Amino acid sequence: MASSLTPFFYPAGVAVIGASSNPRKLSFGIMRNLVNSAYAGGIYPVNPGAAEILGKTNYPDISAVPDPVDLAVIVLPVSAIPDTLEACGKRGVKAVIVISGGFKEVGAEGEQEEARCLEIIRRYGMRMIGPNCVGLINLHSGLNTTFIYGVPDPGGIGFMAQSGAVMGGVVDLVLGKKVGFSHFISMGNEADVTETDLMEFLAEDPHTRVIAAYVEQIKDGRRFLEVARRVSRIKPIVLLKGGRSSAGARAVSSHTGSLAGSYAAYQAAFWQAGVIEVGSLNELFEVALAMDFQPLPRGSRTVIITNAGGPAALASDALSANGLTLDDLEPETRQTLRAALNPSAQVGNPVDILGGAEPPDYALCMKTLLQDKNVDIILPLLVPQALVNPAGVAQAIVDESRGSDKTVLACIMGDLSVDEARLVLHDSRIPMYTSPEAPAAVLRNMLYYREYIEQPVSEPSVPGCIDRTAAEGILTAVHGKDSLGEALTRPLLAAYGIPQVEGGFAGTAQRAAEIADRIGYPVVMKIVSPQLLHKSDVGGIKLNLADHAAVENAYHNIMKEIGTLRPDAHLEGVMVEKMAPRGQEVIIGMKRDPGFGPLMMFGLGGIYVELFKDVAFRVAPLSAEEARRMITDTRAGRLLTGFRGQQPADLDAVVDVICRLSQLALDFPQIEEAEVNPLLVFAEGKGALALDGRVILKQG
Amino acid sequence: MASSLTPFFYPAGVAVIGASSNPRKLSFGIMRNLVNSAYAGGIYPVNPGAAEILGKTNYPDISAVPDPVDLAVIVLPVSAIPDTLEACGKRGVKAVIVISGGFKEVGAEGEQEEARCLEIIRRYGMRMIGPNCVGLINLHSGLNTTFIYGVPDPGGIGFMAQSGAVMGGVVDLVLGKKVGFSHFISMGNEADVTETDLMEFLAEDPHTRVIAAYVEQIKDGRRFLEVARRVSRIKPIVLLKGGRSSAGARAVSSHTGSLAGSYAAYQAAFWQAGVIEVGSLNELFEVALAMDFQPLPRGSRTVIITNAGGPAALASDALSANGLTLDDLEPETRQTLRAALNPSAQVGNPVDILGGAEPPDYALCMKTLLQDKNVDIILPLLVPQALVNPAGVAQAIVDESRGSDKTVLACIMGDLSVDEARLVLHDSRIPMYTSPEAPAAVLRNMLYYREYIEQPVSEPSVPGCIDRTAAEGILTAVHGKDSLGEALTRPLLAAYGIPQVEGGFAGTAQRAAEIADRIGYPVVMKIVSPQLLHKSDVGGIKLNLADHAAVENAYHNIMKEIGTLRPDAHLEGVMVEKMAPRGQEVIIGMKRDPGFGPLMMFGLGGIYVELFKDVAFRVAPLSAEEARRMITDTRAGRLLTGFRGQQPADLDAVVDVICRLSQLALDFPQIEEAEVNPLLVFAEGKGALALDGRVILKQG
Repeated sequence: MASSLTPFFYPAGVAVIGASSNPRKLSFGIMRNLVNSAYAGGIYPVNPGAAEILGKTNYPDISAVPDPVDLAVIVLPVSAIPDTLEACGKRGVKAVIVISGGFKEVGAEGEQEEARCLEIIRRYGMRMIGPNCVGLINLHSGLNTTFIYGVPDPGGIGFMAQSGAVMGGVVDLVLGKKVGFSHFISMGNEADVTETDLMEFLAEDPHTRVIAAYVEQIKDGRRFLEVARRVSRIKPIVLLKGGRSSAGARAVSSHTGSLAGSYAAYQAAFWQAGVIEVGSLNELFEVALAMDFQPLPRGSRTVIITNAGGPAALASDALSANGLTLDDLEPETRQTLRAALNPSAQVGNPVDILGGAEPPDYALCMKTLLQDKNVDIILPLLVPQALVNPAGVAQAIVDESRGSDKTVLACIMGDLSVDEARLVLHDSRIPMYTSPEAPAAVLRNMLYYREYIEQPVSEPSVPGCIDRTAAEGILTAVHGKDSLGEALTRPLLAAYGIPQVEGGFAGTAQRAAEIADRIGYPVVMKIVSPQLLHKSDVGGIKLNLADHAAVENAYHNIMKEIGTLRPDAHLEGVMVEKMAPRGQEVIIGMKRDPGFGPLMMFGLGGIYVELFKDVAFRVAPLSAEEARRMITDTRAGRLLTGFRGQQPADLDAVVDVICRLSQLALDFPQIEEAEVNPLLVFAEGKGALALDGRVILKQG
Repeated sequence: MASSLTPFFYPAGVAVIGASSNPRKLSFGIMRNLVNSAYAGGIYPVNPGAAEILGKTNYPDISAVPDPVDLAVIVLPVSAIPDTLEACGKRGVKAVIVISGGFKEVGAEGEQEEARCLEIIRRYGMRMIGPNCVGLINLHSGLNTTFIYGVPDPGGIGFMAQSGAVMGGVVDLVLGKKVGFSHFISMGNEADVTETDLMEFLAEDPHTRVIAAYVEQIKDGRRFLEVARRVSRIKPIVLLKGGRSSAGARAVSSHTGSLAGSYAAYQAAFWQAGVIEVGSLNELFEVALAMDFQPLPRGSRTVIITNAGGPAALASDALSANGLTLDDLEPETRQTLRAALNPSAQVGNPVDILGGAEPPDYALCMKTLLQDKNVDIILPLLVPQALVNPAGVAQAIVDESRGSDKTVLACIMGDLSVDEARLVLHDSRIPMYTSPEAPAAVLRNMLYYREYIEQPVSEPSVPGCIDRTAAEGILTAVHGKDSLGEALTRPLLAAYGIPQVEGGFAGTAQRAAEIADRIGYPVVMKIVSPQLLHKSDVGGIKLNLADHAAVENAYHNIMKEIGTLRPDAHLEGVMVEKMAPRGQEVIIGMKRDPGFGPLMMFGLGGIYVELFKDVAFRVAPLSAEEARRMITDTRAGRLLTGFRGQQPADLDAVVDVICRLSQLALDFPQIEEAEVNPLLVFAEGKGALALDGRVILKQG
């Protein structure tokens, strides 16, 4: 591996700078873990005071440490760190892990120190993890630079966390359960090495089969999306995002000193990149474990084998709620089971082999169901009974599943009495859950991932017939303003090929009537005023104007009425537009996210968008396929695809408008927000027309 | 307590009929548990073969058992049970627990045996729990008639389960964690004693503070609703329903031999009765424990105290998603904390006292926040760190919370390292959770319950101006038909005072025009045919008919066009109705549930009801308050109450129609389904009008 991150994980020699011989100090904990680990390289405590620590010769400073030394773990007060980094650079250290806190997370002064550190490590071509982190554990080489008590089992999950506490909490959760990890990495403030760098490293790491991450903030969203798209096709990425709600985001920002950005953008990026997002810490490892141990399900057809009805009902409810199907068994399978099982057994789905079921009963069911070509997933469920040995049942499940390519997740209920069974199962790569509800969400995520990687890679759409120069001209002309105004929004959208209802802006009654004469009657007239956002609330829309005189009249009336009603509003004029035919109203929007760039939105128009919050988001640039998926992800999408006998609408036209608006946002970073609302969508092949638009510009 | 169930829990003497001395038999397990329990009464094994079992004198049959003997636990083959019950009856036994399976759950023959047993116990005035159950444990008297390994701690949760396996699984989960129970009851097939009987018993039981239940099927839904309404105001009822999905319901039906009925009806009844429904087995005990240990929150204002940012962010996200609020602290509180804590601590919400936080730091925060009158709920969160003792932090939380009436839930992350802390907390009635997400759902449920019990008891609405005789006449006339037809639905709804748009049925063009002349123009005409459910799909609706001639014409056209298009359809005639003014369309429906009776439905009309599944259900009879709540539970309700500047609609009129349709269903059990669709709702004070209706009758 040529990665600059390799020295973090496979260093030839580790120095612990600030190592202490006082067992109450964290730096002693680091030495203790390092010395007790299987790491085979040299371990060098660095401390001006001591002679030796835990049997390792101490050095007064890093320059005195003998060769080779690739990695320095630094636990010193903030003020001492820049000089130490200089010394590391001079000594030829390649990688540093800064455990100490007191940087960006404590405010402006800390931020300055952090920037200084970054400058030094860049100057020497070093890489840095942290500051303000817990270090890392490489479970395969044994290297352990953390002070955490306990070491998880080695295995295939590469775990990285933007919270040292989450990392410590997880160690306690998985200890002794044969939930195996390749690496455990605490990322701290990510001044240099980021979650995206580590994701790239783990993608290439031969010991890592699944990447699991706890993430609070992604600074470079665009790069994350690009890298994750690529990595997720090599290995699954299971991710828990902290700070989804605004309260959670506040919590994140108070302990990291940075704003998390919009969760809608994160979610959109995760969908687009095939990242498997989970909702809780338990789910993170429940899913990662299954992804590591088991093949992805070929489909959703699940069979439960159980020795107890109640838990099987709970498992069935959870499976149903997560989109798994519990079909009846094939007649042949039923026959085989019926002939061999206790006559009181229920040969349905669940297969209920009753409370007295012994390991051979489980073995028989497993064998039969693994052979049934209509079964994708098997979920053996056991409630330990007085006379049955859970480990024996676990062994039966293991023996029968060997060599099968079907997905098998075991559920053995309980706590104290199931530890042995878990070890038997995990040793043979069958994940075990203790609640009947847990496997359902795991399987949903496995199916989601399978569906994602089976889609062909789609390229960003590049719409044609765009007059970028015209758009540039319009945006240059309004430089310094905070929004574009309706009169200019129309030509801007036109320059990017977004179809709009015929019409134009008029500042006089005469001009209004001329436009109407040109586009043909009947027309609609709408007031134009920066102060009036909800035009219809003030009577600012006149429909169905039938002739020249009606238009002139309407102009005078609208100005008079609104002038009286809202003397505060500056009335610029009106838009005169052709009355549009009937169609389905939708909204297409864009809002620029600080981390991910233009965030596109699609939703049902009218009052229902607010009532049902039925909207979908994607990060630009997006492919036509992604734009289409964005539409069908909403319930509104069902209306457009021919719901309940309605004629299917022109989805291609909507996809086209989404891609065009997205291109506009990509080309002009000064556009902060844009919206086509409503876009009127007609029947398949008949196109769509924007009735109104809005463009907000970046300030300053 | 005068309950006939008392002898199950406090028997003077217990016989175990079918007791075995073979340790491989379940009946030996029962003897073992009974003999090892603290139960102070006589224990009498009954078995024709043995001399003594586990040191207890054996008796050849129940008649030989000495006085007193109140309770018999029976573990015998099905065929021997009826005679045994006769013998128990003769011996004066008051209560029997039939452990044996092989009854209703195995089919028709078993069902007959069960009925025979029921006849015998009724004849002798005995009560029976089971058959096909695991028995019960009274944690306060020590009585244990189960064969389950392990005994939970005594406490305040009365737990009953319609699945013995769920009961056994739960014992394993809670063992050694000081999650305390008053009683543990497995209900089996509920041939005699039902969940509702036990709920009534536990409501009066002085040791029980919270009722927790796992329920698959409630046979007498009406009685359950009535009893639960009463009991939930005395003690919280926390309930997990198995068989919510259709797959889950199939699983239930295959292992109990009975159909579970519609989950919508269960949900509605739970809401109406203030039953706290949870979604998983873990949540059942997480919620029950908090309900037992802690006061209900006075409000939703929650503060997190944490030693780690990441887990606090996850807790904040979960709290937000569950409707809890995390407000900023009052300046005074911030000042107090700021002055006393580590200067790097974050004095926001979460209060982050950093990784090095010790018990005194937790104590200080608890003390300060308990005094803050703007705080309702405190959530101290600890991620065990190398140098901090979790039990010490637990003790600090306990010491400070003593005597407070605020809700305190602790979260200490981890598994192995937190056992001692849990015992400290649970001993002092502070529930401890190990995942940062768990407390959120618990608090949501506590707030839901508080809100429920604070509502005054509301009486079922009894609508006036009902002509029951007229309705009876109509329904008698159509006896044997499967539906009422549009021509008769109109007068039936009218008899129950449901306002309808003016109009009538016409079988000729002449009659149609006469009706139109009477009600005034314009009118609408709709085809009437039992074969045409979606009238508009076949052009069966003509709008805006302006005069006599137009109506006659429309009649002829409609008959000709549809006659050609759908020669299969029998065209009975048309409905002629006044064109209705604009209003908000809603649907009010009724479907009879086998267990709960008339199930009322309210939803948004038109295409959106199917698109968004935005509907609410309640069981009849309902109070006006419940009907109103049913409306506001939906998003459609927001449209009616004046969403986004719209005029508020006449909610009272909708409530009235719901109560009238519900009364109709209560009065006439032959009505299987009824629907007013659409009901057009006008502005406040302007009423509502039914435009169409449908009534389906019970067959046979």
